[in-house]
Amino acid sequence: MRVTLQAAAAMLLSFDRVLILCHRNPDGDTIGSAAALCRAYLNMGRQAKIFCHDAFPEKFSYLLPETPDFAPEHIVSVDVADPALLGSRTEEMLNNRPIALSIDHHPTHKQFAQTLCLEEHSASCCEIIWELLGEMGCPVTKEIADCIYTGAATDTGCFKFSNTSPRTHRIAAEMIEAGADYVTINKVMFDTKTFPELKLEQLALEQLWLSEDGKIAVLTITSDMLEKTGVRETELDAITALPRKIAGVEAGITIKQRGENEFKVSVRTGETLDASRICGNFGGGGHARAAGCQFEGLSPAVIREKLAAAVREEMA
Amino acid sequence: MRVTLQAAAAMLLSFDRVLILCHRNPDGDTIGSAAALCRAYLNMGRQAKIFCHDAFPEKFSYLLPETPDFAPEHIVSVDVADPALLGSRTEEMLNNRPIALSIDHHPTHKQFAQTLCLEEHSASCCEIIWELLGEMGCPVTKEIADCIYTGAATDTGCFKFSNTSPRTHRIAAEMIEAGADYVTINKVMFDTKTFPELKLEQLALEQLWLSEDGKIAVLTITSDMLEKTGVRETELDAITALPRKIAGVEAGITIKQRGENEFKVSVRTGETLDASRICGNFGGGGHARAAGCQFEGLSPAVIREKLAAAVREEMA
Repeated sequence: MRVTLQAAAAMLLSFDRVLILCHRNPDGDTIGSAAALCRAYLNMGRQAKIFCHDAFPEKFSYLLPETPDFAPEHIVSVDVADPALLGSRTEEMLNNRPIALSIDHHPTHKQFAQTLCLEEHSASCCEIIWELLGEMGCPVTKEIADCIYTGAATDTGCFKFSNTSPRTHRIAAEMIEAGADYVTINKVMFDTKTFPELKLEQLALEQLWLSEDGKIAVLTITSDMLEKTGVRETELDAITALPRKIAGVEAGITIKQRGENEFKVSVRTGETLDASRICGNFGGGGHARAAGCQFEGLSPAVIREKLAAAVREEMA
Repeated sequence: MRVTLQAAAAMLLSFDRVLILCHRNPDGDTIGSAAALCRAYLNMGRQAKIFCHDAFPEKFSYLLPETPDFAPEHIVSVDVADPALLGSRTEEMLNNRPIALSIDHHPTHKQFAQTLCLEEHSASCCEIIWELLGEMGCPVTKEIADCIYTGAATDTGCFKFSNTSPRTHRIAAEMIEAGADYVTINKVMFDTKTFPELKLEQLALEQLWLSEDGKIAVLTITSDMLEKTGVRETELDAITALPRKIAGVEAGITIKQRGENEFKVSVRTGETLDASRICGNFGGGGHARAAGCQFEGLSPAVIREKLAAAVREEMA
């Protein structure tokens, strides 16, 4: 059943002993949403805790409250678009217990919870959490403001992407007024590169591949490069955005080696090319400006030729 | 004479045939301010044009209106903190004619105009222009929204720096509602690197110098590197920010060769070190988190040792 924001707020207010679930490969929005909601429950004197298939990256640790252990009564998921994104560890832990409420903002949401609060026009799930807390009458403390600011900023690329709305900015304004430490948050989220990441960039750029007069740029990241630099597969977000940042590039592609013969591809495009259609040629999908697909048993050189051909077709 | 915002708005409304001056090395804020004000005059059916010592960088061309030529009656400067920043070409053109009104947000403003409207708490001069246009009853068109958004975003590093206020975000929200093309603006201002810039980064990073367990990072950009890559001296903003972005770095220093034996130094610091005090040791100055100084007749290796010693002293 899909419910309104007001109904979801009423449900949340009726819950005690709440378990909040994040999606796997957790980002600032799923962690910020979970931590804000968890903190609101703790502030009301109720029990709440967070679970995720993966460990939370160290850089998000400032968001997380200390939580006691307890047997949960109700389960809520935040920013999870698809049950497959809960991850096997979460599924095992759940052991078929139902999820009472799913709060999400992805237009592609596949309903899996008993109740769904879906606001597709929200740039981030944190924007929905902010609205819900308002409905619930939960004050936005400094700690909650840090959480909501983090999700709002990270899911919009620091207010740069087209999902940024006037409301996103107004929420950011309120969060700063509530004490969000936005300078530190932005520094950590957007203005920090580790040495291994810098070295990986150097290595990968040495082999940057260009086509169509520099309109297509392909960066390949091999397992060997990751090994040499010590960068983990979960730390490739920034480098994935790099090819599309080069002046003149309309399709920025990153090919990331996973197993011996397995490659994960990210495609980022400008306003004239549909990335999801390009990836659709290879069984992948996503958004118009950012999409992905996978290849097995082909070399990076063959993969990039196939992708470039698909981009050329999309250009025509 | 220093005047209130209301008085400045009344003055502006009384002007016709207006010449608007930008500071040399023009950035998004001085150009955005001048273009917004100029467009407001044109929309009122009055004459206005813009002058700057330097040519405007190509990437800001979308801000500039077409202006007729005419003999100006009143002169207004925007975002100019010091008469020296007008530049020699502007001074020659002025030929000692007085500047009627100076609109600025720099706390270090050195008064030079007949009337000064100074709002030190504004993150950008564009925020003041936005307020002035409101007082003047000038509607914010899509084109004016592009100008104000550009200044508000560029002077705050895309809402990341500590000068960003709740008002900055609320103005951004309004500008988006007024039609500002924020996605394109942000892409051009913050997410575009040219090939020469990428190559320069590669070259400079190969010789990154570290000290104090990686707390001090020094990047040196020689004239030779600029020549090899084709990057101009005016295009070094992004690379100047790079050393401080490296995880763990508390003082990020960039040494830029100018003449044969002349070096310009930029120092960016974290929250615990005072960059202006570090540069003050060498006759320079600036803000607490970003400052500069110059050296002549010393090698980059000697300069960085001197700077590192000053940073160590500041750390102690």
